[in-house]
Amino acid sequence: MSVTPTARPARATISAIATEAGVSVATVSKVLNGRPDVSAATRALVEQVLERHDYRRRRGRVGTPARLIDLVFHELDSAWAVEIIRGVEAVCGRERVGVVLSELGGAHRPRQEWLDDVVARRPLGVLLVLSDLHPAQRRQLETRGIPYVVVDTAGEVPGDVPTVGSQNWNGGLAATRHLLGLGHRRIAVVSGPADVLCSRARIDGYRSALEEAGVPVDPALIRHGNFFVDGGHAHARELLATPDPPTAIFGGSDLQSIGVLRAAREAGLRVPEDLSVVGYDDLPVAEWMGPALTTVRQPLEEMAATATRMVLALAAGETIANPRIELATELVVRGSTAPPPAARPAGDAAGNPSTSATKEI
Amino acid sequence: MSVTPTARPARATISAIATEAGVSVATVSKVLNGRPDVSAATRALVEQVLERHDYRRRRGRVGTPARLIDLVFHELDSAWAVEIIRGVEAVCGRERVGVVLSELGGAHRPRQEWLDDVVARRPLGVLLVLSDLHPAQRRQLETRGIPYVVVDTAGEVPGDVPTVGSQNWNGGLAATRHLLGLGHRRIAVVSGPADVLCSRARIDGYRSALEEAGVPVDPALIRHGNFFVDGGHAHARELLATPDPPTAIFGGSDLQSIGVLRAAREAGLRVPEDLSVVGYDDLPVAEWMGPALTTVRQPLEEMAATATRMVLALAAGETIANPRIELATELVVRGSTAPPPAARPAGDAAGNPSTSATKEI
Repeated sequence: MSVTPTARPARATISAIATEAGVSVATVSKVLNGRPDVSAATRALVEQVLERHDYRRRRGRVGTPARLIDLVFHELDSAWAVEIIRGVEAVCGRERVGVVLSELGGAHRPRQEWLDDVVARRPLGVLLVLSDLHPAQRRQLETRGIPYVVVDTAGEVPGDVPTVGSQNWNGGLAATRHLLGLGHRRIAVVSGPADVLCSRARIDGYRSALEEAGVPVDPALIRHGNFFVDGGHAHARELLATPDPPTAIFGGSDLQSIGVLRAAREAGLRVPEDLSVVGYDDLPVAEWMGPALTTVRQPLEEMAATATRMVLALAAGETIANPRIELATELVVRGSTAPPPAARPAGDAAGNPSTSATKEI
Repeated sequence: MSVTPTARPARATISAIATEAGVSVATVSKVLNGRPDVSAATRALVEQVLERHDYRRRRGRVGTPARLIDLVFHELDSAWAVEIIRGVEAVCGRERVGVVLSELGGAHRPRQEWLDDVVARRPLGVLLVLSDLHPAQRRQLETRGIPYVVVDTAGEVPGDVPTVGSQNWNGGLAATRHLLGLGHRRIAVVSGPADVLCSRARIDGYRSALEEAGVPVDPALIRHGNFFVDGGHAHARELLATPDPPTAIFGGSDLQSIGVLRAAREAGLRVPEDLSVVGYDDLPVAEWMGPALTTVRQPLEEMAATATRMVLALAAGETIANPRIELATELVVRGSTAPPPAARPAGDAAGNPSTSATKEI
């Protein structure tokens, strides 16, 4: 499969569109360029006709796009975003392309107003991070010949949209195999929201590792939370308070794992002696923790750089040979994982009284 | 003192500039608009004449600036930057102004190439974070009527350049008073580079607190490093290995303080029982540490939002009543500070054997 912005020819001229919509050529041009001086009704009418004809502006035919790309985050909330931004900046700095940054305030799809502004500034292309467009918004970009690439997809994206991600399933597999190799059998996973594709892939990797080791999958040990510290903290606190707590927790992000470390401290558990913790991402903060986090590294900066090169290539009218890229993930072993405690009695982790020989007072 | 982009009138017309430079009006206009199709020699000549006449383009007289502001970081290297970006986005999102992000790769002044691109895209204004412009670059923006504001100044900026910072001196004072109040007398400070103004202000606040408490200032306890984890780590390791180590370390940033925590762990010291640590910034990560960091909160998001409102006001031709704003800092007490160990023998901190009540070996 290959993707190119000029794959489908423009089927109608601007003047044909204008005639059919009953407006002037100038008005169609204004709508295409996102100029504000067109009434909402006229704009909607012109968009309809453009869509009916599957109109595609060819790159470079009308004016020059601005030396900008739009980078949009669903949420700008941690050093995770910094890694992505640095990857985009590295490529755009060299190419002297400005990076226009926006965030969607946690929404996975932008408001129409945002898209109108993008159309008006006519960037070379758009990079969407953990977010996607409504089908109508997608068509609006296509109509204007503005290519876009999705970095780290949150949901399903149509087959002709280029994406750059990382091998989430392999990451989940590697983290869980590492814990199994250390001797853990009760391994919990706290991952991101269930509707985010990358969380699901990581959990499936976790399941596969358990299955190949002949360890039954216990649904009570699979949790979904937000990707931040509080998400990891809340689920770990619950997990550690159960009668048969896990001896290891695999977090869906480094931030969640930091929440797990906090829950362990609060429960009086030492990491890694009493509880092993594996993170995901390998942000700088993973190494700063005490103990430093064992984690699955995903090459965020390189993912972003790859997506940027892709969108610039599409803007230049090139064809992308491989529009669905998944970069490799890698387990980084540090201080937060160790073999499980030899014979920790059930219930001990939550600080419950224990009747066994090891603990009597 | 007040600052307004139209405070000084344009003293020459474009046509007078063109005549004096011996070029066409169109060429002067191209130079003003940062168009690339002018030779370097002609461009330099025109810039000279513009400067000789102290030419200032009035806002709104020629074309409409793009609904963009340029945000430039000297370095994009941690969650610190995320706080700033969020403050800028909060204001620009509401105003539907795009934020073009760049970083200078650690330099405190941008390359000319960057400035040429800014001039070419004609933003409403420029925000510089921990960075500044060369005088010639400053004049280039002034000539084009592009206002700029400096957030968290690294060095001295001329009196007519608006700046938004925080009360660094008060922050240093509050942190040191807190440690003195707990009973510490040997208090070290590891701050940022000596040539960065905010580091110097914090250290001066530290000195003042010691002086008012009658504690002599020991120059050996004052260190300058980079603002990151390794900077704090390297200095803390040295400080803790001295014969008379500090019982408390005040870091110039939360990241430096995380480096101090690591050095303490490596030296077998408990925080806060054996060593107290105070950070600076109050990034989210400060709360994630074990123990959570006592730190000086500077309102980064609000600083950025204030600077953004300022630059947009200047772009709209408004006069800024107070162009030198310092927002308040605030001590946030968490788990990393406590009274000093009652009678820790000297040398113990570095793990050296101690045979006497005090120091002899």
